Amino acid sequence: MKKHIKAVDAHGRKLGGETPLLGTPLVGRTRERLLAEAANVVRQKPDIVEWRVDHFDAIGDTATVIDTARALRDVVGKRPIIFTRRAESGGGERTPLDDAQVVALYGAVAATGLVDFIDFEMTHDPAHLRRVREVTQAHGVRLIVSYHNLSYTPGHEYLVDRFLEAERLGADVAMVQVMPRDRADVLRLLAATAEADGKTRIPLISMSVGPLGSVSRMFGGLFGSWLSFAVGESASAPGQIPLGDLVAVFDIIRRARGGEML
Amino acid sequence: MKKHIKAVDAHGRKLGGETPLLGTPLVGRTRERLLAEAANVVRQKPDIVEWRVDHFDAIGDTATVIDTARALRDVVGKRPIIFTRRAESGGGERTPLDDAQVVALYGAVAATGLVDFIDFEMTHDPAHLRRVREVTQAHGVRLIVSYHNLSYTPGHEYLVDRFLEAERLGADVAMVQVMPRDRADVLRLLAATAEADGKTRIPLISMSVGPLGSVSRMFGGLFGSWLSFAVGESASAPGQIPLGDLVAVFDIIRRARGGEML
Repeated sequence: MKKHIKAVDAHGRKLGGETPLLGTPLVGRTRERLLAEAANVVRQKPDIVEWRVDHFDAIGDTATVIDTARALRDVVGKRPIIFTRRAESGGGERTPLDDAQVVALYGAVAATGLVDFIDFEMTHDPAHLRRVREVTQAHGVRLIVSYHNLSYTPGHEYLVDRFLEAERLGADVAMVQVMPRDRADVLRLLAATAEADGKTRIPLISMSVGPLGSVSRMFGGLFGSWLSFAVGESASAPGQIPLGDLVAVFDIIRRARGGEML
Repeated sequence: MKKHIKAVDAHGRKLGGETPLLGTPLVGRTRERLLAEAANVVRQKPDIVEWRVDHFDAIGDTATVIDTARALRDVVGKRPIIFTRRAESGGGERTPLDDAQVVALYGAVAATGLVDFIDFEMTHDPAHLRRVREVTQAHGVRLIVSYHNLSYTPGHEYLVDRFLEAERLGADVAMVQVMPRDRADVLRLLAATAEADGKTRIPLISMSVGPLGSVSRMFGGLFGSWLSFAVGESASAPGQIPLGDLVAVFDIIRRARGGEML
């Protein structure tokens, strides 16, 4: 696997470095629940956490979100935080915010420096994408541009192009999440990730979701996916497996490959 | 995954049944070493063992081979035994036997009923293949017809056709073992296995060898490979991982898929 020209370093955890990273989602509905969840998850030592703020009841109250992000930073320490309002079309929760309000929230949160990454779907209005790109860049936050298809797995070329499109849109990291209908779909997602890994300058993340796709979370790192989400306390997408299981599989792969993960 | 019309049952271990099987090779050079190895391996509870008789110093002495097979049966109990003289071109050891002598050895061993499977490479003289087919069939031994390429991984269609060719040659089980040069080769072997699984009536076995291919031993079962070889005491091919590691990965995959392996 190539070493990325633009490996992304956040608090010393390198996305696109020597080994794929393990992430855990945080989906607490209240500040209290979120922080308890984070404390529990951090004991399991993920490399990175993702606050799925679409699960947060007070998402519409920017001051509360920022105050909670500050408390979350205290709990997770230097561990990188991905801040994500997942759109409903990407499998997220329904929230009262329209996209313009999400862009404003992203801008306010980016300005605090409390989070390391922000995730925004590539299907949004180009003006919104540009704005998110501007605010993340202005405040040193890394932008993950993501593609989600929770109905099926598109063809190989289309999948490869989702990664390239994310890079064209100014992403620091490109992410593709798709639903497999059969096992060939799982292999196609992995093959497209490997091909795109050879064509992009940024680190990629990909997953085939659901029970059928769960192996992509285990072995995707070998095919160019730099982050795999696992369950610390609660899943945020179908097919996520317990963090301990993923750590065990990564260790076995590393041994099988003579100490190298990739 | 389809249930096979011709799932192969040997002592209640079903190749092509509900779950992929775990096999361990036996490569002892002497009767004493082989039996000690078998005793050690059996404690680790593989589903099946493979006696790689090309590693056996007395391979040229048919009476000793049969006597040793009888002792091996006592050690492994009802666990199925695969009896294999792997050709050098398939990664086997050099032995003093020519192919006609191997065919005669196979006939003598098959007649004893001490082994469950015999493996013969598809590249042999068609007359030898027919003879091995006859003697195995006559004595109720299952025939594995195998293809090996330890230089590279051929193209998708060629790989699919190796499985179909094995079936045309009268195999009860078709096996394909190939060397990957890059990660795309690993995915191609898995995709070819999955496609062939939909086109054949017999169970398939496949593996991409070496450290790069070792993941195919872990998750090949999801793509139509019914047997994965792991190290009980000694490896018989590059990329085999410890049996305990493979059991751990299979358990994690099974949990991730809601209790089903396939």
